[in-house]
Amino acid sequence: MEMKNERLERQFDFCREIDKEKFIGRQTYLSDGQRKENDAEHAWHMAIMAILLSEYADEKIDVLKTVTMLLIHDLVEIDAGDTYAYDEEAAKSKRKREEAGADRIYGLLPEDQKQKLRALWEEFEEWETPEAKFAHTMDNIQPLMLNAATEGKSWVEHGVHIDQILMRNRKTAQGSEQLWEYAFHNFIKPSLDAGKIRTE
Amino acid sequence: MEMKNERLERQFDFCREIDKEKFIGRQTYLSDGQRKENDAEHAWHMAIMAILLSEYADEKIDVLKTVTMLLIHDLVEIDAGDTYAYDEEAAKSKRKREEAGADRIYGLLPEDQKQKLRALWEEFEEWETPEAKFAHTMDNIQPLMLNAATEGKSWVEHGVHIDQILMRNRKTAQGSEQLWEYAFHNFIKPSLDAGKIRTE
Repeated sequence: MEMKNERLERQFDFCREIDKEKFIGRQTYLSDGQRKENDAEHAWHMAIMAILLSEYADEKIDVLKTVTMLLIHDLVEIDAGDTYAYDEEAAKSKRKREEAGADRIYGLLPEDQKQKLRALWEEFEEWETPEAKFAHTMDNIQPLMLNAATEGKSWVEHGVHIDQILMRNRKTAQGSEQLWEYAFHNFIKPSLDAGKIRTE
Repeated sequence: MEMKNERLERQFDFCREIDKEKFIGRQTYLSDGQRKENDAEHAWHMAIMAILLSEYADEKIDVLKTVTMLLIHDLVEIDAGDTYAYDEEAAKSKRKREEAGADRIYGLLPEDQKQKLRALWEEFEEWETPEAKFAHTMDNIQPLMLNAATEGKSWVEHGVHIDQILMRNRKTAQGSEQLWEYAFHNFIKPSLDAGKIRTE
């Protein structure tokens, strides 16, 4: 017989559904430059980075809350797809597509967990709490690190302009001034100097 | 100029190096049955499951500690490779290969973080604390869930016997009796009844 337990069934329905985040591709190449990363890999990478780099947060953060936010904030892309950071057309419809995704995906969970995860996603999107600011710092710095490791491969392919990178990162320092400074000098500047990022 | 900060440089060296966990393949198929998962995807999936299912832990657990353990415990496989659960030959040399991997990979970090992560990995391996027991429950149940979702595809391909699955899961219930019961009835039993798992 199969065991009946509605709460546990909803939890496992959600756990099985989120497997699909592994199919959502991003534009960033992995460090070997051969394959692009997916949302699940990106989230795993950022979660570890948040744990190791939390000492640089400019405001005190709850690390478990930040890690949970990072692990779950891209789940909406299972329905909405990944919107490339420098795709201005797609950005216009992004919020609406992601809201619908959040309704369906977090809605699989029991009510209390649905509300908790959805609120964490909203908090991330609003970019106001110390945890949301630091989570965004991780979300922005992790692809910069990989772009640097591949000598700007994705930037070159998309013909990205330095103004786009700086616009995209205009609030990265809000989570950690020191990490943004480090990322600018070590991950952006070398590709800029090597002509891998457009300046005109 | 590049900024010099030895601690931060070591932390980013580690963060860049662990990108390679995304290249370490496992034997479990993703829920669409098309591609096998990698270690980073597996870790991300388990970390979310640990957060959502911690209420079923038989002993009180520190969730952040458990999540961190799950996120980092397979890093040794960057050097040691993934040892398939039912490969008895490879299992013999596993510990030695993984020790060497731990020395090198955790050794990239500043001393305090190296010791902390290495100790967490050892704690996972020793399977004694409440967090280690629950982490192993996640580590065992997540692939059972995916195997069930693909109607035992990986079990069929490898001709896995029910005794091997039960041996592999002999301690899964130590983290959560309820989750093991659920997993047995909902993830193993249907494939067993359908003849996807060998019994003779």
